[in-house]
Amino acid sequence: MAMRLSQESALLTDLYQFTMLQAYFSRGMNDTAVFELFVRALPDDRNFLMAAGLEQVVDFLENLGFDEEALSWLRSSGMFNELFLESLKDFRFTGDVDAMPEGTVFFGDEPILRITAPLREAQFIESRVINLMHFQTVVASKAVRSVIAASGKQLIDFGLRRAHGAEAAILSARASYIAGFDGTATTIAAPLFGIPVFGTMAHSFIQAHDNEMDAFTDFARDFPESTTLLIDTYDTEAAAEQVVHLAHWLKKNESIRINAVRIDSGDLGEVARRVRRIFDAGGCEDIRIFASGNLDEYELHRILQGGAPIDGFGIGTRMNTSSDAPYLDCAYKLQEYAGEPRRKRSLGKQTWPGRKQVFRSFGKGGTMCGDILALEGDDVQGKPLLQPVMRGGKRAGRLPSLPAIREYASYQVETLPAVLTALGKTPAYIVRVSDSLRHLAQQADERQRDRKQVRARCFDVGKSG
Amino acid sequence: MAMRLSQESALLTDLYQFTMLQAYFSRGMNDTAVFELFVRALPDDRNFLMAAGLEQVVDFLENLGFDEEALSWLRSSGMFNELFLESLKDFRFTGDVDAMPEGTVFFGDEPILRITAPLREAQFIESRVINLMHFQTVVASKAVRSVIAASGKQLIDFGLRRAHGAEAAILSARASYIAGFDGTATTIAAPLFGIPVFGTMAHSFIQAHDNEMDAFTDFARDFPESTTLLIDTYDTEAAAEQVVHLAHWLKKNESIRINAVRIDSGDLGEVARRVRRIFDAGGCEDIRIFASGNLDEYELHRILQGGAPIDGFGIGTRMNTSSDAPYLDCAYKLQEYAGEPRRKRSLGKQTWPGRKQVFRSFGKGGTMCGDILALEGDDVQGKPLLQPVMRGGKRAGRLPSLPAIREYASYQVETLPAVLTALGKTPAYIVRVSDSLRHLAQQADERQRDRKQVRARCFDVGKSG
Repeated sequence: MAMRLSQESALLTDLYQFTMLQAYFSRGMNDTAVFELFVRALPDDRNFLMAAGLEQVVDFLENLGFDEEALSWLRSSGMFNELFLESLKDFRFTGDVDAMPEGTVFFGDEPILRITAPLREAQFIESRVINLMHFQTVVASKAVRSVIAASGKQLIDFGLRRAHGAEAAILSARASYIAGFDGTATTIAAPLFGIPVFGTMAHSFIQAHDNEMDAFTDFARDFPESTTLLIDTYDTEAAAEQVVHLAHWLKKNESIRINAVRIDSGDLGEVARRVRRIFDAGGCEDIRIFASGNLDEYELHRILQGGAPIDGFGIGTRMNTSSDAPYLDCAYKLQEYAGEPRRKRSLGKQTWPGRKQVFRSFGKGGTMCGDILALEGDDVQGKPLLQPVMRGGKRAGRLPSLPAIREYASYQVETLPAVLTALGKTPAYIVRVSDSLRHLAQQADERQRDRKQVRARCFDVGKSG
Repeated sequence: MAMRLSQESALLTDLYQFTMLQAYFSRGMNDTAVFELFVRALPDDRNFLMAAGLEQVVDFLENLGFDEEALSWLRSSGMFNELFLESLKDFRFTGDVDAMPEGTVFFGDEPILRITAPLREAQFIESRVINLMHFQTVVASKAVRSVIAASGKQLIDFGLRRAHGAEAAILSARASYIAGFDGTATTIAAPLFGIPVFGTMAHSFIQAHDNEMDAFTDFARDFPESTTLLIDTYDTEAAAEQVVHLAHWLKKNESIRINAVRIDSGDLGEVARRVRRIFDAGGCEDIRIFASGNLDEYELHRILQGGAPIDGFGIGTRMNTSSDAPYLDCAYKLQEYAGEPRRKRSLGKQTWPGRKQVFRSFGKGGTMCGDILALEGDDVQGKPLLQPVMRGGKRAGRLPSLPAIREYASYQVETLPAVLTALGKTPAYIVRVSDSLRHLAQQADERQRDRKQVRARCFDVGKSG
């Protein structure tokens, strides 16, 4: 169709948000609702998760509204009545947001975001809020594992091409940077977020030249300060030998310094060892070795356990798609409406009702030593993790800068119990549910049971009508 | 940062595209290059793949260019010289595109897209072209498996919330529709692509009401023609019993018809059987049952094998993220430059050089019975799958409409050998490499070996300088 709607359109949502909204509108239902976003259970091989995406959620909430294009499509769909459509013209987010700061480590059933707003607003934002928080949390939680496995080696996000679309590429650059990556190859992440960008050449660059050395020389002359040469297009060791000659020649004759080489195929650890030997024997001790190609935290661990002389890694697809756990079992659920706790009891999907808070305790050396999932006002030991982010639809304060988030995330990892930093599954971190919360859940169940005794309105209407 | 770059910016690419481009520009290298996009090997549990995403690639190529924002960031980065940056002002895609039509079934090593263009253009577009083609192909190839498993039952894409960002949500609605889904819950897919949209209510809608029956009644009154009630919030069978009474009451008193119910938890097949019995016993044979919740083709197969009375399914996360194979091992490689075949020989990543074509043969009943990977001009039996899409930067003709693509895809699945439609791994479909192609690969290797004997330019310069 000719229409070119932007992704910022309010139509980027599930259709049921509109049908529910109209039903609420017809009934005049718009009391204060409290929704919370949480992950039910951690995937295998995730001992903790890292919250990310809040800044994009706040942007979304601040700019939420219906433009003429969106309204005109809704009208043309024939599904909605005019009075309801009129009401959407002034639709804004006017509620409160409380959330764990980006970079916070969290666990199953812990709310990472709480929305307190008139029912229609709190309901409507569901789809996109999950979409934004879920993905960056998936990526940060995956990327931080590589950061742990790399123990200080340079990590660059290489994943644009196989990320799931443009936004996935852009936001995974951000989420992996938060988790501790040093930068990305995705150019647009620099002007958008101020993330350092890296990149040199593809195999096609080598192939397009008649001679591999010519390709290296051309590139070095154009980028004399940041020359990284890709040496595995034909014969890696032969190329490394040549690079030794080239490096000396360029240094002597043109004052150009070859900074690093990149290896993108084969047994990276073994190839790197051979290349390192060639460089060291040739007096090129200062040329760094960078590796890429189907890497993830498991490969990184294997390679570095073997003591491979690799100085940095490009990590793409498996990180950006979180290939071993491409989604989290997250949900955004109504916990309170019109002052009363609400609880879903669907089999296997029960929720904890009420406005909750997560209280975290720390042991000696500042190590995390247990969380308590409790009600907001509860008098519980520990640091409350959910903090005010928006009040009445406006920012409650400045959100932290990306470097500050990254530093906070790094600090979070430092305070993790050592056992949780293992790549495989370990015994779960302790999250205790407070007695007050258990009590409230019981109350909510009882109240719901009582209500079932009450005849539904329609039948009453039927009797009187 | 304050800058709000759109995803359509030319900066949505890997930084190395710019560094290579400048190096090519400095040398005046811009002869005709041929790149091909292909998948190296199929993931486990994929017996065929389905091409998708071409329309978005053509949109991207038609609109490619550098706006002031992009140029000003490139300038401010300090990485590039002014002459090169000036050249980007007129940068457009002026090349040719040949591709398999969207919906085409394909296999490992078969090019699905070929770009023939001046080197700089053909190189620059790499990252975003892969990003667009890869994702929709991943999703179409996953979704078609559910279509096969559902054998005619209604399938709706429910995956916006856990798709990897906005574009993933939007494009997976499109890709799954191509593969044979009946529609999506993602509203914006209707105005963008004309895809049918579906949606009714969330659990929160039930929870916000004091009484489940009130929620159902409110909704039915607002949407008397398309009422689907979510019945698993508290006690599914009790809700089904109530729905029987409500359906009769609403029909009699308000001429409202309950169309369907949705079940979103528990053992869907078993719950559906119980609900069906309740409906049938209560004279509600016409109420359909719709199921959702962590579904994929494996679950669908299991449920339908058991003969569950389910009429339609909402399939989300596992389809949109292609959770069992969230990426394909795809590549976009230089196969020819300046009239000479080129070949990458990195270990495990060797490519077939030259401009290729895929010729497909069909047996009795029109069933596919083997492909030949050959050179473009080869005189080979079979239907050539790559077709002209763009010439000189302009569309070579109208692209097919989405319904036409969907029909073509459905026809493709019909012509698959039955064995390939199994969900598990089966013996591979036969793709033969032509002798002409093997010969060209050998030639390319020999030529490259010869070139290694030639002293590289820089050393020559060194001797003369």
